[in-house]
Amino acid sequence: MLSFLDALKRILVGRPFRTERLKQAPLRKRLALPIFSASALSSIAYAPDEVMLTLALAGSAAMSFSPSVGLAIMVVLLVIIASYRQSVKAYPSGGGDYQIASVNLGPRAGTTVAAALLVDFVLTVAVSISSASHYVIAAFPALAGHQAWVATAGVVILTVLNLRGSGRSKLGAAAPVYLFIGVVLVMLALGGLYAATGTLGTSPSAGFTVVPDPDYPHGLTGLAGVLLVLRAFSTGSAALTGVEVPISNVHILAAPKARNAAKVLALLGLFAAILTLGTMYLARAVKVNVVEDPTQDLMFNGGPIPADYIQNPVLGQLAEAIFGGASLGFYLVLALTVAVLLMAAHTSFNSFPNLASHLATDGYLPRQLRTRGDRLGFSNGILSLSIAAIVLIWLFNADVPTLIQLYVVGVFVSFTLSQLGMIKHWGRELAQTPDKRVRARIHRSRMLNIAGFLMTAAVLVIVLGTRLIHGAWLAVLGIAVLFILMDALHRHYVDVDGELAIDERDSATALPARVHALVLVSSVRKPVLRALSFARASRPSKIDAIVVDADSEQTEATLAKWAELGIPVPITVLASPYREISAPLIEHIRSIKRDSPRDLVVVYIPEYVVGRWWEQLVHNQTAMRIKNRLHYEPGVVVASVPWRLASSDSSMSLGSLNSTPISNPKDKP
Amino acid sequence: MLSFLDALKRILVGRPFRTERLKQAPLRKRLALPIFSASALSSIAYAPDEVMLTLALAGSAAMSFSPSVGLAIMVVLLVIIASYRQSVKAYPSGGGDYQIASVNLGPRAGTTVAAALLVDFVLTVAVSISSASHYVIAAFPALAGHQAWVATAGVVILTVLNLRGSGRSKLGAAAPVYLFIGVVLVMLALGGLYAATGTLGTSPSAGFTVVPDPDYPHGLTGLAGVLLVLRAFSTGSAALTGVEVPISNVHILAAPKARNAAKVLALLGLFAAILTLGTMYLARAVKVNVVEDPTQDLMFNGGPIPADYIQNPVLGQLAEAIFGGASLGFYLVLALTVAVLLMAAHTSFNSFPNLASHLATDGYLPRQLRTRGDRLGFSNGILSLSIAAIVLIWLFNADVPTLIQLYVVGVFVSFTLSQLGMIKHWGRELAQTPDKRVRARIHRSRMLNIAGFLMTAAVLVIVLGTRLIHGAWLAVLGIAVLFILMDALHRHYVDVDGELAIDERDSATALPARVHALVLVSSVRKPVLRALSFARASRPSKIDAIVVDADSEQTEATLAKWAELGIPVPITVLASPYREISAPLIEHIRSIKRDSPRDLVVVYIPEYVVGRWWEQLVHNQTAMRIKNRLHYEPGVVVASVPWRLASSDSSMSLGSLNSTPISNPKDKP
Repeated sequence: MLSFLDALKRILVGRPFRTERLKQAPLRKRLALPIFSASALSSIAYAPDEVMLTLALAGSAAMSFSPSVGLAIMVVLLVIIASYRQSVKAYPSGGGDYQIASVNLGPRAGTTVAAALLVDFVLTVAVSISSASHYVIAAFPALAGHQAWVATAGVVILTVLNLRGSGRSKLGAAAPVYLFIGVVLVMLALGGLYAATGTLGTSPSAGFTVVPDPDYPHGLTGLAGVLLVLRAFSTGSAALTGVEVPISNVHILAAPKARNAAKVLALLGLFAAILTLGTMYLARAVKVNVVEDPTQDLMFNGGPIPADYIQNPVLGQLAEAIFGGASLGFYLVLALTVAVLLMAAHTSFNSFPNLASHLATDGYLPRQLRTRGDRLGFSNGILSLSIAAIVLIWLFNADVPTLIQLYVVGVFVSFTLSQLGMIKHWGRELAQTPDKRVRARIHRSRMLNIAGFLMTAAVLVIVLGTRLIHGAWLAVLGIAVLFILMDALHRHYVDVDGELAIDERDSATALPARVHALVLVSSVRKPVLRALSFARASRPSKIDAIVVDADSEQTEATLAKWAELGIPVPITVLASPYREISAPLIEHIRSIKRDSPRDLVVVYIPEYVVGRWWEQLVHNQTAMRIKNRLHYEPGVVVASVPWRLASSDSSMSLGSLNSTPISNPKDKP
Repeated sequence: MLSFLDALKRILVGRPFRTERLKQAPLRKRLALPIFSASALSSIAYAPDEVMLTLALAGSAAMSFSPSVGLAIMVVLLVIIASYRQSVKAYPSGGGDYQIASVNLGPRAGTTVAAALLVDFVLTVAVSISSASHYVIAAFPALAGHQAWVATAGVVILTVLNLRGSGRSKLGAAAPVYLFIGVVLVMLALGGLYAATGTLGTSPSAGFTVVPDPDYPHGLTGLAGVLLVLRAFSTGSAALTGVEVPISNVHILAAPKARNAAKVLALLGLFAAILTLGTMYLARAVKVNVVEDPTQDLMFNGGPIPADYIQNPVLGQLAEAIFGGASLGFYLVLALTVAVLLMAAHTSFNSFPNLASHLATDGYLPRQLRTRGDRLGFSNGILSLSIAAIVLIWLFNADVPTLIQLYVVGVFVSFTLSQLGMIKHWGRELAQTPDKRVRARIHRSRMLNIAGFLMTAAVLVIVLGTRLIHGAWLAVLGIAVLFILMDALHRHYVDVDGELAIDERDSATALPARVHALVLVSSVRKPVLRALSFARASRPSKIDAIVVDADSEQTEATLAKWAELGIPVPITVLASPYREISAPLIEHIRSIKRDSPRDLVVVYIPEYVVGRWWEQLVHNQTAMRIKNRLHYEPGVVVASVPWRLASSDSSMSLGSLNSTPISNPKDKP
């Protein structure tokens, strides 16, 4: 059984890597840019859609408002990037927002940021892969309706790749992102050219009209209109995730790390702004209509739309309008979008286990998340992320508009606390800096972070205010639950550490007075003889064989056999009026401890090692119970003396069977 | 957690009984009769129904054939009883059919009988309690439709009573059976009187007409008619179960055991015949109509029957016709029928665990079924029976006509093999007996058993032939699976016994050459110090502390602390390029064993004892894996040195916390 699972693991994951392989060359800027940008850039695959379909609730006319919403989001992006360029110079170690919040605002703020980021990393995978699955469906319409399966397949592939430690090829990771930027830029330029010359086509959905939601009968007017625009802004701010990637990965950059990270951040902001705004303006120009539910919310010539209409994402419709429906350009855009979305998810497959490992080292998560697996990845973290993402995908049927409601909350909690931490950081710096020119620079930096804090806090309030009832409550709940678990676990580890720390009263050289060995005998067979000889070999001060008399017939047989074999160990029969094994044994041990409290009692238990799973059910049950029970007795050591049954040989190829060390009777001491 | 489950068990089951309580006074004949008859007599609660509703497939006229079918069944009953009276005299020890088949036909026949009986004991509970639930519903029509819940409640109550060891009151068990016999006899006598005076009423279902099944358009004619009569006979033979009870319980009877058992058998046959035949004749006289599905198979004045009609069992309808619908007599019959059905199931709750315990002692079932629980019942057997019966009840929704299709197969397999065994037994006796008069008696006995064998074999063929496709295949499958499991387990136990038996090459006094102690160190904390001092107390020939270098930072911290504390034990660092713990440790142990093959290696592993379930998830995972892995290494003893965390105190009230025996440093050796 073991060996089958082992073999499966070897096939999927490959042979283990040696620890030395961890050392890697630092990452050059021109490779870092695409790799660190994938997450932020990938959001143009779904963020424009979200803005437009939220506005579409107020009808076709309202959708023309989308480029303005996009512009607002980009302003926020640029402010965040400017303030992050400050942070990265102050904290160039790669600890990211978690470190900034912990150091400046205390460990509870750090835990909050960590919980928020963990939740959002899971959502990055769920949203990116769900979105990618819709692009796959745009290319292969036969898969329509099976998006959850497609997305699950994507997560599983990424999981296996990450467990294998593949996807570390820098060039392989950078190329698709550069290609994606290139192709989208070409598309936008062509689109601009066509628009200028008046030859721009229309999107497949241009002929439809949008049916406004009954809640918005007069378009974007009144308070309801303002709230809808805020909601569009809030969902569109999904475009802001991934900005934290460079700051969390400074440490793997080539020197000068902080300056390179700042440059990468600036370029990332530039590309994100151009691509997002370009896409949103052109989408309006080719009259893209996207809605939540096409069959209900779209009309064609006053009647229902064709039954076989599949609503493709905005980027896909744009490519169709500019390159043509079955053209190379169209498929190239789809394929590269899927690649960049996978890269975004892949970024989370690095960030989540990395953060989890940091947290485990600090005692906020179980230690299992700390250790590297066979291929040097944090396997347990990778698996946890993968399982959580798949659960989310199935919970929401890979539906991006629903998943996006949960998204961004975590990132903005983290942004906001990190900016607050930076403000405190500059305040402390100011107090220690007498030089006026340096003080002026610090003042400027602090102003930038204050601006960043105000903006991210405002976005957080907007996000929570407009989306809490639409699903964001689940993200908040997730963050809260994670926080509570991490906090409880940390306190547990701290308690245990205190309890186990060696203090001056502990002596490293003290020994128990004497050792009293007890050998548990059920019937006189080979395993008992072995347990006896092992117990005697440890030369205890006193040794006793113990029979618990739960079945008088069996006890008498045991005693008879004992006498017949002339075993040179006294045997004690413990009465058991209630046919129990543990209770009389423990009573006996306590009476020994009462008589000589400083003695150590070692209980030798013969145990079978079986090969087939069902054999475990018919053997060792009593031994197991006794062992568990004895664990709670102070001053008792339980020594298992294993006896391998013949069947155990088949399941373990290693080692010879029962090659007992007592083969030669001449060795008697 | 432990203590909560313990408390629940105490409330349900009560305080344990001492083993001495097992000794009981022998059972007098006048108490044995009702107790041993309950199972056989209870079948008049459902057997007449089954005969009539099978015949009803051929229409109303066919139902008048039912008393004749009942007569045929009673003839079989009397032959079985006559031959059983032979068996009980030859095998008066209470081993029953299992013993007779094993001794005379070999262990495989015995195993077959045992498997068949176990299956039928489960079915006795399922059928009796399901039938009882319909009588409860006849008294409380509001429960209609919830028969499976009522039946489950019945099984649970019986289970708890049997686990408590209650229901051993002889008088309490005997009284309801006597009362039942009395009330039914009174009812039959009254019915006969009314019939003679022409004042006999009619049953609630007398006004309905039966719609014949389309398969039987001309009533009981042709081959189809013959087969239907055989099927009615076959389902009605459920009345024959329970006849084996006296022979399986001879040993608890008062002396002379065999003669008393024979008398009980004769009286049991007499009562069963009178009650069954009386019920079936009177049921025709009051024109009872019972069918499988009343709404489909019954008509009233050519139209559908009233929608709220609930079909009560035959005995209930008879009581209603003779005593009146809401009379004391009616409710008395219902209540006593339920009591006798419960008694029948209760009989199985004795027989099943008893047989299972015999089988476990002989190595055909897991040893857990052999031991008596707190209240001296075979608790594991009781629970197994209970679970199996509840599964059957829910599988068939407590529907007696469906369950009965599975029933009787096992009993007749057992009857037939036991009769065959008796024939062989008499043959052997004849060969050893020269005395002519004794030989004549043996010849007579053998003739009786031959007649019994032919009859039971014929019934078995009829049962299988008419019911195999209706559900009996499931019983056959159950018997076959049980047989295979028991046979495999027996062979396993025999193999292990052979493997573990002590032979002349084993020496009871040989000892390993030297003991090499290894103490596994992860970090230098109190549990490690304790493991070290315990290991040193056992005065090994050689002792080593072992650090596996899976994490170089941690290893260095450990070594530094080791030096700082001045621990007087050498520490060995094992390299672990693949960050594993077990593999380097096992490699190290093997190299020790290579150098000195006759050494015993004892690995001391510090282990935490935790109190809360989730703590088990964050501690000991590595220790567990290492222990499991070391079990497969020959010549290695694993000694767990437990350290109780503070939290473990709350879950176990016993014992003081970590009262370590190394408190006094003056005890240094």
